[in-house]
Amino acid sequence: MSLSFELLKESGPARRATLTLPHGEVETPVFMPVGTAASVKAVPQDVMETNGAEGKGAGIILANTYHLYLRPGHELIRRAGGVHKFMSWNRAMLTDSGGFQVFSLSELRKVTPDGVEFRSHHDGSKHFFSPEHSMEVQIALGADIMMAFDECVETPATWERTKESMGLTHAWAQRSLDYWKEHRHEVPWHNELDGSHQSLFGIVQGGMYKDLRAESAERLVEMDFPGYAIGGLAVGEAREVTREMIAHTLEYLPKDKPRYVMGVGYPDEIVEYARMGVDMMDCVLPTRAGRHGLLFTSQGRLNIKNKQYAEDQNPPDPACNCMVCRRYTRAYLRHLMHTGEPLALTLASEHNLAFYLDQMQALRNEFDQAE
Amino acid sequence: MSLSFELLKESGPARRATLTLPHGEVETPVFMPVGTAASVKAVPQDVMETNGAEGKGAGIILANTYHLYLRPGHELIRRAGGVHKFMSWNRAMLTDSGGFQVFSLSELRKVTPDGVEFRSHHDGSKHFFSPEHSMEVQIALGADIMMAFDECVETPATWERTKESMGLTHAWAQRSLDYWKEHRHEVPWHNELDGSHQSLFGIVQGGMYKDLRAESAERLVEMDFPGYAIGGLAVGEAREVTREMIAHTLEYLPKDKPRYVMGVGYPDEIVEYARMGVDMMDCVLPTRAGRHGLLFTSQGRLNIKNKQYAEDQNPPDPACNCMVCRRYTRAYLRHLMHTGEPLALTLASEHNLAFYLDQMQALRNEFDQAE
Repeated sequence: MSLSFELLKESGPARRATLTLPHGEVETPVFMPVGTAASVKAVPQDVMETNGAEGKGAGIILANTYHLYLRPGHELIRRAGGVHKFMSWNRAMLTDSGGFQVFSLSELRKVTPDGVEFRSHHDGSKHFFSPEHSMEVQIALGADIMMAFDECVETPATWERTKESMGLTHAWAQRSLDYWKEHRHEVPWHNELDGSHQSLFGIVQGGMYKDLRAESAERLVEMDFPGYAIGGLAVGEAREVTREMIAHTLEYLPKDKPRYVMGVGYPDEIVEYARMGVDMMDCVLPTRAGRHGLLFTSQGRLNIKNKQYAEDQNPPDPACNCMVCRRYTRAYLRHLMHTGEPLALTLASEHNLAFYLDQMQALRNEFDQAE
Repeated sequence: MSLSFELLKESGPARRATLTLPHGEVETPVFMPVGTAASVKAVPQDVMETNGAEGKGAGIILANTYHLYLRPGHELIRRAGGVHKFMSWNRAMLTDSGGFQVFSLSELRKVTPDGVEFRSHHDGSKHFFSPEHSMEVQIALGADIMMAFDECVETPATWERTKESMGLTHAWAQRSLDYWKEHRHEVPWHNELDGSHQSLFGIVQGGMYKDLRAESAERLVEMDFPGYAIGGLAVGEAREVTREMIAHTLEYLPKDKPRYVMGVGYPDEIVEYARMGVDMMDCVLPTRAGRHGLLFTSQGRLNIKNKQYAEDQNPPDPACNCMVCRRYTRAYLRHLMHTGEPLALTLASEHNLAFYLDQMQALRNEFDQAE
């Protein structure tokens, strides 16, 4: 079984489904924590397996192709048996294409129709990513889901510039698809997991233009990917625009395949988008904010470094049942953060991840119980 | 029950005992991990409760009075109910007197017979520690065991200078004892734990001079402390000298009370000293070394950052059964360390602590099984 997407229930545009992948089942709508360099920052894998009110942990996590390509190198991970074995995570995983990171290196890159030349942010060394090379790297990493190599247009961009960039994304999507079909048996666990392989998702671009978003979705659907992502959002535009682009694009995506909005968002956003019919989302926010002392709670955002929490003996979120909120106080977390103790990063990240995971769990429970 | 020390077995100079304290029983000989600022660096409390081959975790941990006095402040911790509640650690704890840290601030301190004036290493603010104030702070923190306020002589020091410093330590020991006896009912958990209180240990000084060590031990034993520590060792002297001073001093300490050697040491040292009759030891080495990528294993020390481990799919220590060695490879730890992932600190510290705890567990098992 390489990928199956079983719709369990629909409620208006929202969907409740089970996504079955080579490394396990994922209940959707799902939030996917980001493990950039094959580690969800500061959180051990056993916590990722058990975190959250129901103790179920995360069903799927992300890793970043760009980071793992540079360090430790995709061939090293291939030789280790793939990223699951490398990091000891036996549940589902997804890798991005490296495109977004490469395009973020605005000073260090050069785009041609063939691909992107860029310099490492570590040592300035020169590298080249083409759709084929991104696929090769992602097959070596061996996540359950891999992403087509796309161009992310700068924002704001004119209609003409966006259309041109979108054309490149479509050409690269086809090349990604061709390479994947020819090489997908090369994934490190192909034989071990009964001849199953990775699944490739296409990425809809089109910037903030509805006609281009529709065209991009239609063009990718023609190519027939196992799943579709909506990319190029949450890059600085107003949240209302993000919402509008998602709603508009979803209309053009098939109902029987998973739909993934990349790189969003705040807790209320992921709930909102899931209610609109998005199945999968990822974001660095819970861990990144946590490392800076920003906690997401049922009472809103809370900067645990503030003096007002110095003697607050309540849990970070009194309504939260995560392992952090069951054991520690705001006063203790504030102290850890204030003194620069590494445990601060761990506990704040764990709580924020639990908050995100629990929000989606609550939403799934709501869908399950709906008439 | 404030403190009981039940000798279970003796084997030559070595002893196997159970130390019962207000927050639990401690099987000795014991290694006490250091939680400087009320956190064993990078290791969550639930791991400290379960770490090690037998899953028993640490029976007792340390916290540093100097650090907690400065941040978050002992009165804040007193109001939180003591350091156990503050950090959510319900097993035994020990605090040092702050003396060693204060004396380490060589540029920033001024010693008088009354006490030590020093400047904070954080902000340069001026503070004063006397024996009475150290006791007051330690009672507010509320660890199960507190330490007398002593002067740690610089090393090397002449016999005369060492004798003079030792005299100050003895005067301060008596003042510590007097204050403790008068105020020990003020510990935050006094009523909650059935009127039990903290226990104060005296600290033998005397530098590297056998006659002074003997005199110091005899003088402190006359004062009748609930337990005795040997301080002022592992401060740069040859290891043979450390060993000789410990062996010599132990002869002057009563057999029916716990004996604690402060701030040692490497894994083979703690085993050696336990075999000589030491009951308690503490050291920052397992966590500090771990944060720098130095792992203690059954095969010796291993710098996990070395390139030779880049593709080593073995556990950090193949003979270790800790949660890190059961799950992760050297290659993964090397990658985490190399990329600066915070998880590297956590996993390396957890393994090193398990290695220390397991060494002492093995020694206790050996003593238990001996004829």
